[in-house]
Parts: sequence; structure tokens; C-alpha cells
Amino acid sequence: MKNVLHAKCVRCGRTYEAIPTLTTCQCGGILDIVYDYEHIKTVLTRETLARRRDNSMWRYRELLPVEEETEAPPLRVGWSPLYRARALAERLGLRALYIKDDGINPTASLKDRASAMAVAKAREAGARVIACSSTGNAASSLAGNAAAAGMETYIFVPSRAPKGKVAQLMTFGATVVSVQGSYEETFELSRQAIGRWGWYNRNAAVNPYLSEGKKTVGLEILEQLDWQVPDFIAISVGDGCTIAGLWKGLKDLYALGWIDRLPRLISVQAAGCCPINRAIESGEDWRPMEENTLADSIAVGVPRNADKALQAIRESRGLTVNVSDEEIMAAQKLLGRTSGVFGEPAGVTGTAGVKKLCEQGKIPPDASVVSVVTGSGLKDVANAIAACPEPISIPGDMASLLEAFAARGISAYSNLSNR
Amino acid sequence: MKNVLHAKCVRCGRTYEAIPTLTTCQCGGILDIVYDYEHIKTVLTRETLARRRDNSMWRYRELLPVEEETEAPPLRVGWSPLYRARALAERLGLRALYIKDDGINPTASLKDRASAMAVAKAREAGARVIACSSTGNAASSLAGNAAAAGMETYIFVPSRAPKGKVAQLMTFGATVVSVQGSYEETFELSRQAIGRWGWYNRNAAVNPYLSEGKKTVGLEILEQLDWQVPDFIAISVGDGCTIAGLWKGLKDLYALGWIDRLPRLISVQAAGCCPINRAIESGEDWRPMEENTLADSIAVGVPRNADKALQAIRESRGLTVNVSDEEIMAAQKLLGRTSGVFGEPAGVTGTAGVKKLCEQGKIPPDASVVSVVTGSGLKDVANAIAACPEPISIPGDMASLLEAFAARGISAYSNLSNR
Repeated sequence: MKNVLHAKCVRCGRTYEAIPTLTTCQCGGILDIVYDYEHIKTVLTRETLARRRDNSMWRYRELLPVEEETEAPPLRVGWSPLYRARALAERLGLRALYIKDDGINPTASLKDRASAMAVAKAREAGARVIACSSTGNAASSLAGNAAAAGMETYIFVPSRAPKGKVAQLMTFGATVVSVQGSYEETFELSRQAIGRWGWYNRNAAVNPYLSEGKKTVGLEILEQLDWQVPDFIAISVGDGCTIAGLWKGLKDLYALGWIDRLPRLISVQAAGCCPINRAIESGEDWRPMEENTLADSIAVGVPRNADKALQAIRESRGLTVNVSDEEIMAAQKLLGRTSGVFGEPAGVTGTAGVKKLCEQGKIPPDASVVSVVTGSGLKDVANAIAACPEPISIPGDMASLLEAFAARGISAYSNLSNR
Repeated sequence: MKNVLHAKCVRCGRTYEAIPTLTTCQCGGILDIVYDYEHIKTVLTRETLARRRDNSMWRYRELLPVEEETEAPPLRVGWSPLYRARALAERLGLRALYIKDDGINPTASLKDRASAMAVAKAREAGARVIACSSTGNAASSLAGNAAAAGMETYIFVPSRAPKGKVAQLMTFGATVVSVQGSYEETFELSRQAIGRWGWYNRNAAVNPYLSEGKKTVGLEILEQLDWQVPDFIAISVGDGCTIAGLWKGLKDLYALGWIDRLPRLISVQAAGCCPINRAIESGEDWRPMEENTLADSIAVGVPRNADKALQAIRESRGLTVNVSDEEIMAAQKLLGRTSGVFGEPAGVTGTAGVKKLCEQGKIPPDASVVSVVTGSGLKDVANAIAACPEPISIPGDMASLLEAFAARGISAYSNLSNR
């Protein structure tokens, strides 16, 4: 890879050749891919990009750690829409708010960016099988992206994973192992199995390429904003890989000189499971927490990418905020009503955090903010159903309709009366 | 609208001025929008299109029935991926098969194309409220697209609509009326309420603009194939509006001289609800049928767009095929395993039809076929869950894993052994 120098441990600084099957450092630290930005500058410019019709994450190929001849995996991942959310901004008293809807990905979550990268690297490694443990989204995303590429998957999920996510990945033909235990126990069993059978490892805790896939969400946000840097980018945080990837993308752009300053990150966690934010707020090391939140995709009590995530939040002089499950579900509705975006609980947690920080006066009203929605609400309808009132249920006649409207105090707006 | 001549009744031929609130002909027939292709040729070419970066259905603006100054609605609808499905083609013994995944739309179905059009036309009409009846997808799609545009929605669904779809549209802030009856009764109540309150009407049975939104799926398929015409395009059929829209788009391209022949349509219905296919096969008028299929989005016993749909299928010398619920669910798995695309039952019905016609020898092996997946499998996980086996459920230790693999005859493939 002409664009990659090597991989470097974020903990001890030791460097490694960037081979496809790279895992963690011998010290246990996570590796970071280090690029040759001077080389990249000679092969990629903002103008080149602007002319590219490839509307997927692979439009940033020169910034991705893959061999030049590696084929992009089949599913179209990335280049999700960035919406200017005027109505929501007004509600929150913000000058400018953008929603990056990453639920619009082939398997409906941001995790597709990492899974597509895993498939590309597994191909380079000559592997036929890829495996991972996951709370759900990484799993279905890996299963879908691998199936499209003709690869087999073994997937370990904790038994609490929503049935919809499990059905999705089984439809993709994955061999699914549901572990009766926590995410931590699930991860540990997957680690042993991967070691035993030598499967390509798509655990973000171990594989340094995955956050490089995820960084494309940051690259896209800036390109979609025409390289105008927002003041803040908010995102929900579980394992830590996603916020670390986002930050890596932003730093890439800064290193290339394509942006002249960096946004501040907003790390949003569920109050019932916030080990990373607790570490930032206390200034201490992170410690495991219980997984007490309905936002299952970020219910990670033992965050495996804590080192990278903490470094990202600190480097960016980031804000942290923890939100309750009630605040998360309220954000789901608020986002839906004002923006037409339906995110899963973990997906809208970032937006819940933005709302809370605005109310607390910690985001100034003249700020510009991007909020990343990391997964579709259709991933977990059970919680949405529980949070929604029952619809009006009536027999099919006008008298019943009028009666139901009257009983609920609904005064139907008439387009006719205002002509 | 410089590009539109008028609207014309498909039944009696009477013409109408194309005002935004246009409904059906006084004879009860559905209207078709008639374009001025000579004018369009002067403002749009294939080369102009190729340079456009707008990756939404609005890239075809000159072919859409909207005023030049009408703003495109906020959500990014359309330009869904077209995948070359090599593994599936091989299974079916087909030379070339493409999957158009329209589940990748803001609210996860093809219906977004019609709803975006409804929002654009409602704006032109100065309406603040839009209403519709729907088996589910049109509803959530209208609710989402309208919410993003700051408009209110009243939505009538039959009580059998899956809860996930209802939760999605309630999250979008719609006022939802669940009718204890069939789709036909639901439609009738919505008709009365729309008349009473003058809401903008997003019923595809009545509003001639909606199939013009849907036609963009056909425009995209041909542009994505670089204007190489496939032999067949397969799609599931319920109300009839979608296949009629698809055909309209193809005919537009033929009228412009951008393609030199037209594909044949494949109309796929559920065996338990196939009034349109029955009419084609018998050569008689269509008659209502019961709605006996789990593919809820196409369970339409009284198809309101039957005239347009029948005309489209006949004009294209189309094939018809009816598939059982078992064939539909088998197609869902087959598509997932081979292509990484997870479609809802009605979404994969087109693919089920292609499979059946291949097996019956009605599609020749050297044909090129496009199969449109009209909605995401996440829309209806209940059926996917029911169709999937239980995952392997074990405690988190290697002994349990080995035991479970042995009990199921799983011989785990080792990447190591093949190095």
C-alpha cells in the first residue's frame, strides 16, 4: 500500500508492517494505521474528488488502507445523506444543525463502513471466513457485506440482541452463535473461536482497519459541507471504535491541508453505560460498567477501543454528555417529527446529547453542529412501539372517525378552509 | 410546467390541465401525465445527466411533472444501488441478473419515490396537510417525507399493518387511524375524510403524479446499466401503481430516443392475491380477490391502478407469475445469502417470480434480467424471524461451542488449514 507507512500502537508506539491480518500490539494496545500524507497529496485533491461519481465510501480510496488492486466489496456502503435540519435547529435554538443519516446503508447502520473494510482486507488475506462478536449491527452488517462478496461468516451475539437484527443476519446466511451472557463474555468466546479456526477477525477491538472504514463518515461530512468545518460533531459511543474512526477521518483532512481547523467531538453515552465519558469527566482510567440501557448498540460495559476513543475526545477538546433512556426515546420522536429521520435508540443518542447540551447552555446558540445518526429505527421497532401511543383504532366509517377525533380533541385541519 | 402537455384519462382519453390537485377523470378513469418530449430533448441529454452529481430521483427533474421553481423535498430519495448478482444468476442459470435495492431509501421502500412527489405537488397546491391510506409503506413514507418538509399527515392503515411500520410513521408524527377492516375499507374511509377536509391526496389510486415519482426507478435502472436495455424487469405488483410507473419511465426513455427497445415486464403477484395477473392470464377484466398472503405490501384485493398496470404489462408483452408465501420466504433467504440484500416479503416477491420463471423455462438462460426489491426486510421482521431457524444458543465457553457444532454437524472451516 503506497499510501500507508505502517501501523503504530496507540499505547507503546511500537510500529508494525501493515499486513492484512494485523491485530493488536504485543503490549495489548490497539494499532493505528499511519499514512503517507505527502504521497496522498500527489494522487488525490479536493477537485479530483468533486468530479468522482462513485457515491460510496470507496470514493476516498486513496485515504483507505487497501492495496490498489483490491476490489471494492459489492454492497454500496456510505455516502449517506447529510440533511440541514432547520426545524430541529430552531427547536434547539441552534444556528445550524445537520443530521448525517447513516441508517441509509445497505444493512441500515454505520457499521457497514467497517464491515466493507473487513471484507476488503479479508480478501487481501485470502480468507474465506470472517467472524465477529457484536451487539447486533456489526453482526448483520458483516453478514450482509460478506454474503454479497461470497464469503462465509460466524457470528457471536449476546442473547439480548434484538430478534430483528438476528433474523437479518440469519437471512444473510451467517452461522449464528447466541451467547447466554454479556457482550464481554460473547466477545471472549469469539476471540477463542477465531484463534482456534483462524477466521478473519472483524472485531473492532482487535482489527485496526475497521476504524479506517468508519472514518469515511467524517470524510463525507466535510465533503458534503463543502469543507466548511462545523464547530461540533456529535455521535453516540459504545465500544469507542466509531468516534475514534470519525476523528481519524477529520485528522486525515487536516493533515492533507483540506480543512484549516478541527471540529470538537461530542461523545454521547447512555447514562446507564458510560465508561468512556466517566473516564473523561473524572480524568481517570476507564473502568467497566454494567450495561443498563435500551440503546443496545452502545451498551458496551467493557469498551475495547477505549484508548483510541479517549485520545480522540481529548485531542478534540471534546464535550461529553450522558443521556437517560427516556431522553433517548424522546430524541427519537423529536428527530422523526422534525426531520423525517427514524433512528434506532443508539442511533439517536447523539441527537439526544446535542439537545441536552443546548439546554444546558454548553453548546453556544451560534454554533454549527453535525449529529450522526448511526442506525435505522427499523433495527429495533420493539422500543419504538413501546414509546409510541396506540394509533386511533376504529371501524371503517365516518361516524366512528368523527367520534374518535372528538374524543381525542383532534381538530382536523382543513386545507379547504384556507384557500 | 413547460415539459408537461396535459393529463389524459387512460380509459376515455379525455384531457385535463395538469394542476397540482388533479385527481381522476370524470368517467372514473385514472389520469396519465403526457409530456412534451420534443421540449425535453432540448433541455436534457444523456450527457447532461452523466455530469450531474445529484444522486436522487430529482436528477431527472426535466422528466418530472413539477414546476421549475418547486423545491425538491428534503429527504434524499432514489438513486438506489443496482447490483450485479452473479452468484444468484449462477444459481438460477441466468446469464445476467441485477438487483435494484430500493429498500435503501429514506423510509426503506420504493414508495418514497411517490411520497416525495406528493410532497412536491402538495407544496405547489399550497396544502399544509397530506393524507393517504396504505398497507404500510406508503404511509410511513408519506409521514417521513412530509415531516422533513414541515407538513402534517393523516394516515389510514388497515389494522393488519405490521407494528413496525406503524411505529415508524407515528415516530414521524403522523395522526394515524387504524381501520378495523380490509385495505378496501381503509381506502374508502380515507377517501371520505380527504373529501371532507380537503387534504392533499396521496392515494396512488387517485393522484396521477405518484406513478410519475415511481417511474424514476425505471430511469435509474437504465442509466445505471449505461442505457443497455435488459430483456426483462421483474417487480412485485399490488395496487398496480408501481409497475405502471416503472413502465412509464421506460417509455419516457424510448420516446426520447435514449433506448432503442423496451424491456418486457414481469408482473409477480402473491398466489393468494393476484387479481391483476389473473386478468392478464384470463384475458378478462380484473375482479376483486381476497388478500391471502403474508406479503402485506402487495395484499391488495381491489387494485386501484389496475387499468394502468394491465396496460403496462400488455404493452410490454409482459410475463406474469404468481408465487406462494413459501416461495416468497425462500426468495428472501436466497437473496440474502447470495447478494447481501434483505428485502421484505413483498420486496422479494419479484425475485421469487424470476426464480420460478427460470425453473419453468419461461425466461431463457441467455436473458438479462433486473429484479426490483421494493422494500427492506427490516420493515417486517416478524415474518423473517418465523422463517429463520433458531440461532445456536449456548453459554459462553468453548466446550459448549464445540458441543453445539458437533450436535448440528457443523464442521467449522478453518482459514488456517488452507494457508
